[in-house]
Amino acid sequence: MNLKAYRFTGGKVSLADIPTDADGGLTRADAEARMVTLGARLAELQERLYAEGKRSVLLVLQARDAGGKDGTVKHVFAGVNPQGVRVTSFKAPTLQERAHDFLWRVHAQTPPAGFIGVFNRSHYEDVLVPRVHGLLDGRGARRRLEHLVAFEALLHDSGTRVVKAYLHISKEEQRQRLQARLDDPQKHWKFDPADLAERELWDKYTAVYETVIERSGTKRAPWYVIPSDHKWYRNLVVSQLLVDTLEDLDPQFPPPTFDASKIRLK
Amino acid sequence: MNLKAYRFTGGKVSLADIPTDADGGLTRADAEARMVTLGARLAELQERLYAEGKRSVLLVLQARDAGGKDGTVKHVFAGVNPQGVRVTSFKAPTLQERAHDFLWRVHAQTPPAGFIGVFNRSHYEDVLVPRVHGLLDGRGARRRLEHLVAFEALLHDSGTRVVKAYLHISKEEQRQRLQARLDDPQKHWKFDPADLAERELWDKYTAVYETVIERSGTKRAPWYVIPSDHKWYRNLVVSQLLVDTLEDLDPQFPPPTFDASKIRLK
Repeated sequence: MNLKAYRFTGGKVSLADIPTDADGGLTRADAEARMVTLGARLAELQERLYAEGKRSVLLVLQARDAGGKDGTVKHVFAGVNPQGVRVTSFKAPTLQERAHDFLWRVHAQTPPAGFIGVFNRSHYEDVLVPRVHGLLDGRGARRRLEHLVAFEALLHDSGTRVVKAYLHISKEEQRQRLQARLDDPQKHWKFDPADLAERELWDKYTAVYETVIERSGTKRAPWYVIPSDHKWYRNLVVSQLLVDTLEDLDPQFPPPTFDASKIRLK
Repeated sequence: MNLKAYRFTGGKVSLADIPTDADGGLTRADAEARMVTLGARLAELQERLYAEGKRSVLLVLQARDAGGKDGTVKHVFAGVNPQGVRVTSFKAPTLQERAHDFLWRVHAQTPPAGFIGVFNRSHYEDVLVPRVHGLLDGRGARRRLEHLVAFEALLHDSGTRVVKAYLHISKEEQRQRLQARLDDPQKHWKFDPADLAERELWDKYTAVYETVIERSGTKRAPWYVIPSDHKWYRNLVVSQLLVDTLEDLDPQFPPPTFDASKIRLK
């Protein structure tokens, strides 16, 4: 699977032109079979990354409400050793966090060498939400995006491969998923009535997401717009993205610091 | 499976009397079939714990070198959503960490409400290693253990269920596992020649582990001595321990803060 069509490293982005329900010509059964192979490969590459202990990967997940961030984490990382994976779910900032610049709490959670870090929501919320709600003007948003780009370049140059995924769903798909949460009492905890107000701002979010992806998609930290109406296709693409990223890094088991043939155990 | 025989909440402990190769009368195939059921149950309970967002679980894993800490994490948590699990592997303390009391860095890593925390090595290393190497006398060790007990009681009383597992292997099993690491170049990175010196101190470690379990096994933070020569049995017992702990907590999906029947999605 070639992910180039979903990759953005600068230049114009029109979300309306990217289908939310693409399936790569695969059936669900095809995709699930491929997930088994990809999952095993991901587990193997993660072990090498951990053993090497020199570089890291940061996967940033952004989406609208019910866009599938939680489900992606659950399915893509099932079978990967949790010892080498750190998921950070960013919520509304605490008082202490708000007393610092917006990247302070984010920087603290970046993956150390050997780790795969996953951000479920991220520093991008600090542009998206205030810009949509008019708390940040265009100039203020651009300035924050410049800071983000510089921050991600620092991570890249320090051995962290940064990949950013926008899980792209249609407005109708969101409606169905929110309705499913309302219909199932065991899913009520995932429903926040405040999400309804955000849903009203659908088009504003689209416009801001486009600006964000245009201005912060870089070669050192590309954005991927991932068709996500089909959960199984989304999981497959994100898994492939991680496997490709890790294969490109090609982590190696470190050379031994001893001569194994000379060691005799008693 | 009843784990009572492996549970210690105070009183005499003799590790020699606890078989390292117990298998609960099960075959490997039996155990693997049970693991499927337990894994699904653990995933379900973890989701409830996360949804409830009020309480947490801390699993402390201690073992000798090659005792199976890494493998336990990998197998027990395969299939559990990594978003709700935080594994901390404690290494030798950094300069900054050493400038504080020995519980400072540990406290910072305790699981927040909703999470399962796993310590791969822990504050117990700060008693075991210095005591075995003579850097701490009996009185010093007892004092540290008192601090540990008080700290774990604080966690318990604040909503964190603490369970501690000592993965119990025989000296011969350790020999075989270390040899396997020497024989496989892809496992060399897990071998540290310094482990050989620790192996020479086998009996000293046994004595200190006994003291530690006797003095820090409490009702609020019990120790479990887990027969671990058979990896599949060890995984089964640790999974059962977590499931039992979570079933006892019985986390609940939070009641909705809205009337789902009154919400209409547009």
